[in-house]
Amino acid sequence: MTAIPGNRKVTRKDVARYAGVSDAVVSYTLNGGAPVAPATAERVREAVRLLGYTPNASARALKLGSSHMIGVIVPDSTNPFWAELCRWVETVARSKGFAVLVLNANDSKAIRLEYLQTLASRQVDGVLLTGEIDALDVDRFNATGVRWAMLNQSTTIDGALGVGVDLAAGARDATAHLIWHGYTRIAFIGEMADARYGGWLSTLTEAGLAPGPLFDAKFTREGGYAAGQALAASHDSVDAVFVSSDMLASAVLRALHEADLAVPGEIAIASFDGSPESEYSWPALTTVRQPVQDLAAKAVAQLLHREQPPEDEQLLAGTLIVRQSCGCP
Amino acid sequence: MTAIPGNRKVTRKDVARYAGVSDAVVSYTLNGGAPVAPATAERVREAVRLLGYTPNASARALKLGSSHMIGVIVPDSTNPFWAELCRWVETVARSKGFAVLVLNANDSKAIRLEYLQTLASRQVDGVLLTGEIDALDVDRFNATGVRWAMLNQSTTIDGALGVGVDLAAGARDATAHLIWHGYTRIAFIGEMADARYGGWLSTLTEAGLAPGPLFDAKFTREGGYAAGQALAASHDSVDAVFVSSDMLASAVLRALHEADLAVPGEIAIASFDGSPESEYSWPALTTVRQPVQDLAAKAVAQLLHREQPPEDEQLLAGTLIVRQSCGCP
Repeated sequence: MTAIPGNRKVTRKDVARYAGVSDAVVSYTLNGGAPVAPATAERVREAVRLLGYTPNASARALKLGSSHMIGVIVPDSTNPFWAELCRWVETVARSKGFAVLVLNANDSKAIRLEYLQTLASRQVDGVLLTGEIDALDVDRFNATGVRWAMLNQSTTIDGALGVGVDLAAGARDATAHLIWHGYTRIAFIGEMADARYGGWLSTLTEAGLAPGPLFDAKFTREGGYAAGQALAASHDSVDAVFVSSDMLASAVLRALHEADLAVPGEIAIASFDGSPESEYSWPALTTVRQPVQDLAAKAVAQLLHREQPPEDEQLLAGTLIVRQSCGCP
Repeated sequence: MTAIPGNRKVTRKDVARYAGVSDAVVSYTLNGGAPVAPATAERVREAVRLLGYTPNASARALKLGSSHMIGVIVPDSTNPFWAELCRWVETVARSKGFAVLVLNANDSKAIRLEYLQTLASRQVDGVLLTGEIDALDVDRFNATGVRWAMLNQSTTIDGALGVGVDLAAGARDATAHLIWHGYTRIAFIGEMADARYGGWLSTLTEAGLAPGPLFDAKFTREGGYAAGQALAASHDSVDAVFVSSDMLASAVLRALHEADLAVPGEIAIASFDGSPESEYSWPALTTVRQPVQDLAAKAVAQLLHREQPPEDEQLLAGTLIVRQSCGCP
């Protein structure tokens, strides 16, 4: 295929020799900097194609300051929510000519910062970050010198660009739907520190209902299963439950099936995320779909163009998807 | 925190000035190349720490030829199997001091090659690739000049390092377990081009059983659901089914529940992957667990140290996990 002996990497010199031009003309053609006659540029491009030349992007990034790459640092890419969000970030970024690198910080602030520094030193064009953030984090992120923005941020903080999902409003929609069905003893499964807890609580209070029992659960399948077993044990005092994520809800379903409790007949469920898994569970989960596509598009725009929407548009609304687990036909 | 005005990036010059040494001494301290007195080196490291200096890794990679990064290109990181495998690659690589970049090629050979070239030009230390490969691909991959190896490769090809999972053997174990239960009309759901199909077929033939109906399904939830509906429609001629992946099997379960068919009572299921989802489905899936941890460790070792195991150890064995969907108590 090529005139290059052995397996050594094709260089700009090889391209120049093949095209019969100087090294500088190859560089002008590929990177700009000086005009090149169209026929000459065509010859250079033909040589690049024939020889399979890949410009050295580290060298080019140093010169041009752009690598056409963005990084995304998430807590755990095996969580279906993060997995789907990363895919959308990738789809949006790709349409703008950027490749996306995904890294897992394992819920560790130290690893998140380390990866941000690593990506910064690789001249990526920007990094989307997730998780908790405080003023000190803002300083540390700025010190890396790389563009950054928060992805899926539900609280605002000075100096940090970011959009997120209105978790409290979504939880209110789901809880209100369960109340509309006529359930009066509505439990909660999830983390109390999460905004969804507040949404569930305020909706019950405003409807004049006593809050049902609370089952604390981390966002893991094991956590959902344990909470589901506890729920099954106290099923006499519960007729419905709001569960903070689909992954938890799938494991809750399993625990209720095992205890031979009918869903929605004996305990109705409304959940949160709108993951593909929720659509194919048994019964299919009524859930608040997170606006992952919109979230990804806004986050990429913020990162690349520093576009910050007005404050009242920084929390995106989820959408209640009514299926069977709530009692709808 | 620093003596650097405004937000501009800390440079090697700043470190040199702060430590009272020349630029070259900073470089010698951080990158080697010439001896530096211990007290001087300590002063440089202190300045690096105080100023929050991040060496420019693109420049360093050009010089040292190592970025301590490896890339992984997968078909779809939202598929739980790939998501889990990537997490293991990351865990193994991190223990050796390497960060991992995950990219999605969307089942496209063209995107896979493009991303490999992109990563190669960023001086990553190596790239793990997935998917189909032929002799032409081997040439193209070699032309990028970057180290590469195949991840989860079930066929061997000249010039390509790679370990994979013995899919046919796993399918034989699962099918044999269904036969042991006494089922005689055992269907197949999955892709015929896949080695699992051959494992299912040969096990039935060797046991003197006629192969049950075959339901072709792509590896998507939608595909599994459609195949499950077709299976439910012909349930009179089937008493068990081998399903090629847990993600498919979850959707098959949903279709059977909807058709009011008991699992395992009316149709027993054995599946493949051993994903977390399979453990919490209803009923819990009997499945062949893929050796993802071992697969990740061997692939990283191949990539970094060019260690190729002997041919008869290039396919790793899965493990049958017996739960309830097969009819076991």
